[in-house]
Amino acid sequence: MSLDALYSELTLKPNAKLALIVLDGLGDLATKEQSYLTPLEAAFTPNLDALSKNSAQGRMIPVAPGITPGSGPGHLGLFGYDPLEFQVGRGVIEALGLGVELKAGDVCARANFATLDAKGIVTDRRAGRIPTETCEKLVALLSAKIKKIGDTQIIIKPGKEHRFVVVFRGKGLEGPLTDADPNREGYAVPTVKPRDHKNAKQKKMAGLIADFYKAALPILAKEKPANGFLMRGIAHQPEIPLFEDRYKLKPACLAVYPMYKGLAQLVGMKKIEGPQSIAEQFERYLTEYNNYDFFFIHYKYTDKAGEDGNFAAKKKAIEDFDAALPILFKKRPDVIAITGDHSTPCAMHGHSWHPQPVLLNSSVSGSDKLDRFTETGANNGSLGIFPAKFLIRLMQANAKMFDKFGA
Amino acid sequence: MSLDALYSELTLKPNAKLALIVLDGLGDLATKEQSYLTPLEAAFTPNLDALSKNSAQGRMIPVAPGITPGSGPGHLGLFGYDPLEFQVGRGVIEALGLGVELKAGDVCARANFATLDAKGIVTDRRAGRIPTETCEKLVALLSAKIKKIGDTQIIIKPGKEHRFVVVFRGKGLEGPLTDADPNREGYAVPTVKPRDHKNAKQKKMAGLIADFYKAALPILAKEKPANGFLMRGIAHQPEIPLFEDRYKLKPACLAVYPMYKGLAQLVGMKKIEGPQSIAEQFERYLTEYNNYDFFFIHYKYTDKAGEDGNFAAKKKAIEDFDAALPILFKKRPDVIAITGDHSTPCAMHGHSWHPQPVLLNSSVSGSDKLDRFTETGANNGSLGIFPAKFLIRLMQANAKMFDKFGA
Repeated sequence: MSLDALYSELTLKPNAKLALIVLDGLGDLATKEQSYLTPLEAAFTPNLDALSKNSAQGRMIPVAPGITPGSGPGHLGLFGYDPLEFQVGRGVIEALGLGVELKAGDVCARANFATLDAKGIVTDRRAGRIPTETCEKLVALLSAKIKKIGDTQIIIKPGKEHRFVVVFRGKGLEGPLTDADPNREGYAVPTVKPRDHKNAKQKKMAGLIADFYKAALPILAKEKPANGFLMRGIAHQPEIPLFEDRYKLKPACLAVYPMYKGLAQLVGMKKIEGPQSIAEQFERYLTEYNNYDFFFIHYKYTDKAGEDGNFAAKKKAIEDFDAALPILFKKRPDVIAITGDHSTPCAMHGHSWHPQPVLLNSSVSGSDKLDRFTETGANNGSLGIFPAKFLIRLMQANAKMFDKFGA
Repeated sequence: MSLDALYSELTLKPNAKLALIVLDGLGDLATKEQSYLTPLEAAFTPNLDALSKNSAQGRMIPVAPGITPGSGPGHLGLFGYDPLEFQVGRGVIEALGLGVELKAGDVCARANFATLDAKGIVTDRRAGRIPTETCEKLVALLSAKIKKIGDTQIIIKPGKEHRFVVVFRGKGLEGPLTDADPNREGYAVPTVKPRDHKNAKQKKMAGLIADFYKAALPILAKEKPANGFLMRGIAHQPEIPLFEDRYKLKPACLAVYPMYKGLAQLVGMKKIEGPQSIAEQFERYLTEYNNYDFFFIHYKYTDKAGEDGNFAAKKKAIEDFDAALPILFKKRPDVIAITGDHSTPCAMHGHSWHPQPVLLNSSVSGSDKLDRFTETGANNGSLGIFPAKFLIRLMQANAKMFDKFGA
C-alpha cells in the first residue's frame, strides 16, 4: 500500500480551521558578521514568542539534501506534492508569475527578445536589456497580429525588460520541448524538438513553435535592437491531483503576488483577491473564516530582503509580520503552521538548500519548551528535520483528521 | 525523475576545493565508566573547536537504522553510493585490504587454510590459526605452481594467520557464488554453485573454483595442519559509476592503509602514494592542491583504538589528528567535512550502528553556534540525523555546485 493511499484511507472530515502561513525565504544563516544571529533571531517578535511556548518546532528539507528550490518546487513541496514527481516547467511558472490564468493543457514558453544579425545569428541574447516599456510595445504589436495559429489560441504577455511569455491554448498540445535558444551568442536559434520523439502531441507543439517564429519574425524584422527572440522552458501545465480531493480540505489562497496565487491555483486552491498587505490578508481571513477549511497565507517580503542581502530589511519584514499576527488570533486557527518555502540567506543573496524552520501550533501540538521561534531552536524541536511534503500531513494530524491505523 | 538524475542535471563545474576527512570509527558512546564523555568529548581539540564555531553539525546513519557497516559499505556510503544498491563482496574487500590492484571483472574469494581428515572432512576451519609466516610460505607454494587455469590468471595473496585471497582475472567471469565452506567442522567442503542458476558467467566461475581445488589440494596434501582450504564471499568487483562522472569532481585519495586506497579506487579516485601519517597526508594535500578538486583523507587510528576498547588511545588519536589540522589550514579547503565512516565505540570493541558525528564547514555552511565538535552537540546541529550517502551532495551544495531547481 502506498503511503498516500494510507493517508487517504485514514482521512476523516475536517472539523477545524488550518492555516499555512509562509514567510517566503524565511530561513537564514547565523554568521559572524551578524553576531551569529539570523534575522529571525535578531528580530523583536513578541507574538511569535508567545506562540512558540505552546508549539512544536522543526526544520524542513524543501526537496532533497543540498537542492535549492525555486518558488515552484518550494511551494509544491509545502502543499504536500513531491517536487520530483510533480514538476512545473519554467514557462508555466513564468506565466503564473505574470498573472496568466492558465487552463489545463496550456503550453507555456518563457521568451526573451534578442538581437539577430542578417544571417539570423544571435548577437545579443537579451537585446541590450530593452526597457520594460519597449517590451510592452513589442508584445502589443505581436499580440495584435498573432491571435491564432490554426485552431490554437496564442496569448502573449510582457514581463520585465526583455522578458515575455507565450501561452499556446489548444487541443492535443504537450511539452516539454527543447529550447529555441543557443544559450550563447554567435549561433543561430535552434529549431525546437520534442523531448520524447514518440510523443505526437509534442511533435504538434514543435510545429506550432516553428509556425509562431514564421509569423512573428517578420513583424519584428525592422525593430532595433529587438529584431528576434528566444524561447525556453516550453512545457504544459502538469496534471496535479486537486488539493481538496487529496486532503478533504477546502482551500483558499491569500497571496499578494501573482506567482503564488498561480501556484495555489495549480493545485486547485480558491484565489481570494484584494488584500495588499499581511494585515489585510489576516483581516480577510477573518471574514472568510467560515467559507474554507484551509488558508494558505503568503508573505513575500522576507524573501525580497534576503535576495537583496539586506539583513535589516529581513529583520524588519519579520517584525512587521509579527506585529500583524494579533489580527489572525482574533479567530485563532485550530492548526497554525508558520514556515518558509525555502531559505533565502542574506549572506547568499538568493535561495538556498538550508532547511527552513517550521512552527506547528495546535491544542495537540505539544510544547517543545522553546521561548522563541528561531533556526537554532528549531534544530532541537520535536518535529526534527523532515521533508517539507509531510507538513500538511502533520497539520491534518493536528486537526485530528486521521483515523487510527490498525487496531 | 530520479533524485540522482536531478542532482546530475543541476550539477555545475566546480570552482572550489573540497576535503572529506574521515576519522575511521570516530563515533562513540558516552558511558558512566568514562564520566559520560565520549573520546571526542574528552579530547583536547583546540583546532576542531575553532572550526566548529563557524560550522554546521549533524549525525549520519551509515546504511540504515541499526545496521553496523564494515569498511566497504561505510565508505561507499560516505562516497555517496547507496550501500544497498552497490554491494562489494567480501572477497573484493579482502583483496583490496591486501593491496591487490583489482581490474574490472576480477572475481575475488577470501580463503582460509583449514585441516581436512583422510575423507576430506573439515576438522579445523582455521588450521589451528597457523602463523602468518606459514601462510606466506604456503601461498608462495601455490602461486608458484598455479599461475593460470585455462586462460584465467590466478593471483594469490597471503593475509594474517590462516587467511588469504584468490583473485581470478579472465574474461566472462562473474560472482556471486555460494561458499566453499561448510561453516562448521565435521562436514566436507561443499562444491560452489552459481547464486543465479541461469547466469553463464557464474557457471563458468564455479567450474574455475572446482579446477582450482583440483590443482591446489594435491600441492597441500602433505602439509600439517594446513592440508586444505575454504573459500567464501566469491564475488566480482561491482560496476560502480565513477566518482568523477557522478559529481564532476576530480578526486584524490590520501590514505595510508591499502583497504581504504582500494575502496577509493573502486569509485575511480586517484591514489596518492607516500604519506605515512596524518601530518604527511595534510602536507601532501598542500602540494597536490592544484591537481584535484576533491580530497578524501583517511585516518585509521581512531578505529583501531575503538576496536581495542582503548579509550585513552582513541582520545589520543583524536588529539594527534587535531594537532595536525593547522597544516591543512595553510591552504584551507573551501568545503571541509570531518566525520567517520561509522562508530567504533570503545565499550563495544568493534564497529556499531550508532550515527557518526559530522562537521561541515564552508563560507555558506552557516553556524550552529556550537563551541565544540562532539556527538552530543552534533545531535543539535542543523544537518539533523541523515543518511551518510547525502554528505557529498551537501558538500557539493556548499561548493555552490548546484543550479537552482525550477523557477
